[in-house]
Amino acid sequence: MKSNINVGVVGLGRLGGLYVEYLSYQIPGANVIAVADADTKLATEIAEKYSIKHVFQDHQHLLDVKGLDAVVIVSPTSTHKDVVIDAASKGKMIFCEKPLSLSLDEAVMMKKAVEKSGVFFHMGFMRRFDRGYSAAKKRILDGEIGTPIVFKATSRDPYRPSLEYADPKKSGGLMLDMGIHDFDLARWFMGDVADVYAIGDVLAFPEMKTINDVDNAMVVMNFESGNIGSADLSRSGIYGYDIRTEILGTNGTIQIGYLRETPITILKKEGVTHDTVPFFMERFQESYIIQLKDFIDKAIRDQEPSITVEDGERALLVAHAATYSLHEKAPVAIDNEAMSYQLKSESEKITS
Amino acid sequence: MKSNINVGVVGLGRLGGLYVEYLSYQIPGANVIAVADADTKLATEIAEKYSIKHVFQDHQHLLDVKGLDAVVIVSPTSTHKDVVIDAASKGKMIFCEKPLSLSLDEAVMMKKAVEKSGVFFHMGFMRRFDRGYSAAKKRILDGEIGTPIVFKATSRDPYRPSLEYADPKKSGGLMLDMGIHDFDLARWFMGDVADVYAIGDVLAFPEMKTINDVDNAMVVMNFESGNIGSADLSRSGIYGYDIRTEILGTNGTIQIGYLRETPITILKKEGVTHDTVPFFMERFQESYIIQLKDFIDKAIRDQEPSITVEDGERALLVAHAATYSLHEKAPVAIDNEAMSYQLKSESEKITS
Amino acid sequence: MKSNINVGVVGLGRLGGLYVEYLSYQIPGANVIAVADADTKLATEIAEKYSIKHVFQDHQHLLDVKGLDAVVIVSPTSTHKDVVIDAASKGKMIFCEKPLSLSLDEAVMMKKAVEKSGVFFHMGFMRRFDRGYSAAKKRILDGEIGTPIVFKATSRDPYRPSLEYADPKKSGGLMLDMGIHDFDLARWFMGDVADVYAIGDVLAFPEMKTINDVDNAMVVMNFESGNIGSADLSRSGIYGYDIRTEILGTNGTIQIGYLRETPITILKKEGVTHDTVPFFMERFQESYIIQLKDFIDKAIRDQEPSITVEDGERALLVAHAATYSLHEKAPVAIDNEAMSYQLKSESEKITS
Amino acid sequence: MKSNINVGVVGLGRLGGLYVEYLSYQIPGANVIAVADADTKLATEIAEKYSIKHVFQDHQHLLDVKGLDAVVIVSPTSTHKDVVIDAASKGKMIFCEKPLSLSLDEAVMMKKAVEKSGVFFHMGFMRRFDRGYSAAKKRILDGEIGTPIVFKATSRDPYRPSLEYADPKKSGGLMLDMGIHDFDLARWFMGDVADVYAIGDVLAFPEMKTINDVDNAMVVMNFESGNIGSADLSRSGIYGYDIRTEILGTNGTIQIGYLRETPITILKKEGVTHDTVPFFMERFQESYIIQLKDFIDKAIRDQEPSITVEDGERALLVAHAATYSLHEKAPVAIDNEAMSYQLKSESEKITS
Repeated sequence: MKSNINVGVVGLGRLGGLYVEYLSYQIPGANVIAVADADTKLATEIAEKYSIKHVFQDHQHLLDVKGLDAVVIVSPTSTHKDVVIDAASKGKMIFCEKPLSLSLDEAVMMKKAVEKSGVFFHMGFMRRFDRGYSAAKKRILDGEIGTPIVFKATSRDPYRPSLEYADPKKSGGLMLDMGIHDFDLARWFMGDVADVYAIGDVLAFPEMKTINDVDNAMVVMNFESGNIGSADLSRSGIYGYDIRTEILGTNGTIQIGYLRETPITILKKEGVTHDTVPFFMERFQESYIIQLKDFIDKAIRDQEPSITVEDGERALLVAHAATYSLHEKAPVAIDNEAMSYQLKSESEKITS
Repeated sequence: MKSNINVGVVGLGRLGGLYVEYLSYQIPGANVIAVADADTKLATEIAEKYSIKHVFQDHQHLLDVKGLDAVVIVSPTSTHKDVVIDAASKGKMIFCEKPLSLSLDEAVMMKKAVEKSGVFFHMGFMRRFDRGYSAAKKRILDGEIGTPIVFKATSRDPYRPSLEYADPKKSGGLMLDMGIHDFDLARWFMGDVADVYAIGDVLAFPEMKTINDVDNAMVVMNFESGNIGSADLSRSGIYGYDIRTEILGTNGTIQIGYLRETPITILKKEGVTHDTVPFFMERFQESYIIQLKDFIDKAIRDQEPSITVEDGERALLVAHAATYSLHEKAPVAIDNEAMSYQLKSESEKITS
Repeated sequence: MKSNINVGVVGLGRLGGLYVEYLSYQIPGANVIAVADADTKLATEIAEKYSIKHVFQDHQHLLDVKGLDAVVIVSPTSTHKDVVIDAASKGKMIFCEKPLSLSLDEAVMMKKAVEKSGVFFHMGFMRRFDRGYSAAKKRILDGEIGTPIVFKATSRDPYRPSLEYADPKKSGGLMLDMGIHDFDLARWFMGDVADVYAIGDVLAFPEMKTINDVDNAMVVMNFESGNIGSADLSRSGIYGYDIRTEILGTNGTIQIGYLRETPITILKKEGVTHDTVPFFMERFQESYIIQLKDFIDKAIRDQEPSITVEDGERALLVAHAATYSLHEKAPVAIDNEAMSYQLKSESEKITS
Repeated sequence: MKSNINVGVVGLGRLGGLYVEYLSYQIPGANVIAVADADTKLATEIAEKYSIKHVFQDHQHLLDVKGLDAVVIVSPTSTHKDVVIDAASKGKMIFCEKPLSLSLDEAVMMKKAVEKSGVFFHMGFMRRFDRGYSAAKKRILDGEIGTPIVFKATSRDPYRPSLEYADPKKSGGLMLDMGIHDFDLARWFMGDVADVYAIGDVLAFPEMKTINDVDNAMVVMNFESGNIGSADLSRSGIYGYDIRTEILGTNGTIQIGYLRETPITILKKEGVTHDTVPFFMERFQESYIIQLKDFIDKAIRDQEPSITVEDGERALLVAHAATYSLHEKAPVAIDNEAMSYQLKSESEKITS
């Protein structure tokens, strides 16, 4: 057991900047000693603000910093593969923000690199660390709702992302960019997914057609256990950021989620009104911090990571299968060899 | 035990008309055989609609109808005394809508007449029959919240009544007209009230000053048991009809009340909104019916009434004491003989 | 415009008995003059209780009662076809409880009989008359949520019905018996369904396997408009009767539904708790009455029925397609001729 | 405008320790350069953990640290007077945790010292910085509920404090220790209080009698504006930490408060349940941080403090008047000279 961990942060976008702040101030045992970002001006500013010694433009130099124990990867998804493989080869502990990759082939390569090197790897799915989701998991393990049999998820963004951001070539599309959280939760609560079927279309924002993605979709899943589940995804939850999940068991049901930002209610002739949660940082800020704490804590204690590279790969597989089902208008099995092959081709198409 | 009860209804205003309908169609064991109202045209129409044999302009003739077992009094409060005393003297069972009277002297006379004649007398306080309030009572008796120690009530009307209706000379004022429900609930849940202190003023509707009544008030009470309570009353609950009661026990608390008319929620950028309960008929319609059923049922079975004439008198006493406290700006004891005398004088002043 | 309608009620089970009570007492303009039930003792008792002149064992004699204007059909689904066709041929107005039939062939025959005779026919789907659902419909028509694009329904029974009742040969199975309400709502809010895909299994009650039906299922739908929807159905909503529907529009979303029987909340160390809605009569009692009022009212005024025989047939078609999809593990188009043929065969299999 | 503020923290109890953490890590512009606590071991540990240069056992030495700009006082209430007066005389900016003092005489002395020296003084009432309370304030100022006319507050602790802590000689008793927050909110939302009347008793914890304090109380207030208000206080809110406030306006009402810790709801046969808020740190943690930010921010910019020493003194006056009313069983005017004198004597009695 180490007393603390020297961390390098790769990628200093909005989330990367916050990760530096959290790791610097709120996470005991973490020392940020290096940052890297293509935007060197930004990287230098952040390094100064948090008194971080080493600043780089690329991850390779960062990985070579003497005494570096771990790397936190918050750079664009397309860069994940190289950073993960390089970090694994140099024996660094890895935290990688979701999604693992857009490409199933890349994901397999990354998984192999991690497994071969045996490094500690934490896949970033912050919802698992939300107080609601972790309490629900505990309650279910305690048997409070009996055996879980049905999984239901709803994810809605409050507005359409920029077309540049949303472009499936960059984001992977609705299923990979947004649905992947729900697919990870589905696996976490219910076990592996056997097959999926998805429907969806451009229903709210006609301009989404120009990037070949849908803005609303629904997915149903059979789990390998025989249980069933669904996820409905929307870019047009215009009323607020709405993340809800329900697990129905044989003895009751658990619902996770809320739509309320401040604890005030206004009652007027027109009705009783409260506000909604603006977006993901308001909803999950604490989860990001708890997740980073968990990463550092497990790393320090030489314990197993809470979420593995395989979790990252398998959620990605479900997301690709859902995307494929959406296009082919047919159910898609996850583990069928032939289908996997097709999925891979499909995933290449999406990302090429 | 009778098989059914022949009923006469005195007073055919809005509530009286509904009582005739409920007694005719929804209350097994009740036969409405006579109605009386000063407005004979109205009385005749209602009698025809519900195939009621006897129609009168006054209660005396109604009380003389052969075979009449019971009288339901929904006429103006100022008439209650005569109808009750006449009905008691003729041995009729009595249901009397709240308040018993505006005058404490009258209330004492009515109580004595009922006690002397030994007739069945049900004092109308429909809230006790609301599914929320009766469930709460049962839970408390079952010990679910431990020993009740604090009582809190809120009553708010959605708009100002007409000045004619609200005039204390007619309605008794805010404490008698509106507060009396909360004072009855206070006694029902906590036992008798020892003393009260009230504050209040014309805060929302300046025109209330012309009738010498307040539109908002707050009352705190010491119960004879040593426990404490409060009621806040408002004519300006402009957002809806808001009736809430809480009983805090040593082991938990029970809250009764809701503010929602239809089961729909609308979520928009401006917030999450649901509607409110418009007014008392929407909130308590079922309670009125359940109360009438209880009256008929207990009467048929020769059982004790659920709410007695003394309950009517004592709630009135609390309401008068609260009114007096409001005017005198001092705490008022309920059972002090001298104070009772003063209260009576006060009550005469209000109603004269 | 008639002044009132002479009604015969066919089928005096629990719901039939209530319909007689509602039509007798709470629905202006309705005169129940005849009842019929295979159980003559029951029929006679009910006739006496409500002073109904004519009592029969079968619907044919009831249809011949002189002066009879309308028939309300609450008898077992298997009898609907004969009663509807006979009533249509005799020019009687018809109210038929859901589902129209278990058989698509029968449904077509009934539709043709009604269309040929031109009689007034109201298909019983009471949810449309629930204050929540009708308010939601109005709000949507008023444009409050913009254009509706996603439909989501949840229906959960609080316990497993008896195997005898649930047997698909009698009930039609989960999709026809329970899902048909959601399919009707789907059509009402979103227009006709183009295709469905369903998954489901025996997850809570192993004994359901003996009757070849599932106890939990999920359905996704493409509407002809291009919009999308889902319904999840459960026999194991063990915590209460849970009926929820959401319509997501381009400008907001509407949620219909609640899970609360009495207006009390209990707060203890263990948490904040309120009760749930026990079952459908507690949830929809008022809707049944409003629907019967609508039927009588429209019939008296010679207006079009609010829900037509075609509505009954098309909801049934969706339910059959969903059943078929569940068995075939493939998406099923509703309006494809060949598929309709297959569906019909399938529906025969289910009901044979 | 300074670029940042050198801060000394006096008092390193639970809250003091957190203040050091917040000021060190989460509040831009604050440098903690000194700490003081009677427990030097604790003080040394904290200083080491946060790399704080100066450690003292008393505030005098701390105030003499070169370059010190401000002092944050979180030491026991009985020490506030000396620290405030000394800090004022040395021209230091002051943040003082509530209550200002237990003694009205002391409060007057402190106010005079602050006014004479002209130093920046922020009185700590963190609720004003809660997102709910500050949003409510803004909405009211925006006119959303019309003119505020009725104020209602509920404060309930989830369990009885230790008798040592609760002892009025130390804590000031229920009104000063707990009620003072509500009296501050009352003044903030409604303006100054004209008079109060309080009732209360030992209803839940008989052992409270040994320290001469009540465990449940209710207070009603007339504001100088003529508006009215109430606060009910309890040490036995055994179900959770329950802080609720409502401001009723002529055009609607605002309710602030919630009772929910995690976003999960469990639905079982026994009912629908969610958890409650454990205690004040869970409820108001963010408010403490926002308040410290506001203090530092205003201090840096040479702006007026958000809450003044007079706010501290006047809330204390209301709390003393309420205590006095509770004992005397009579209404107590706040601003009457003679009464103030009596109050002061009373306050001496309480604190001697």
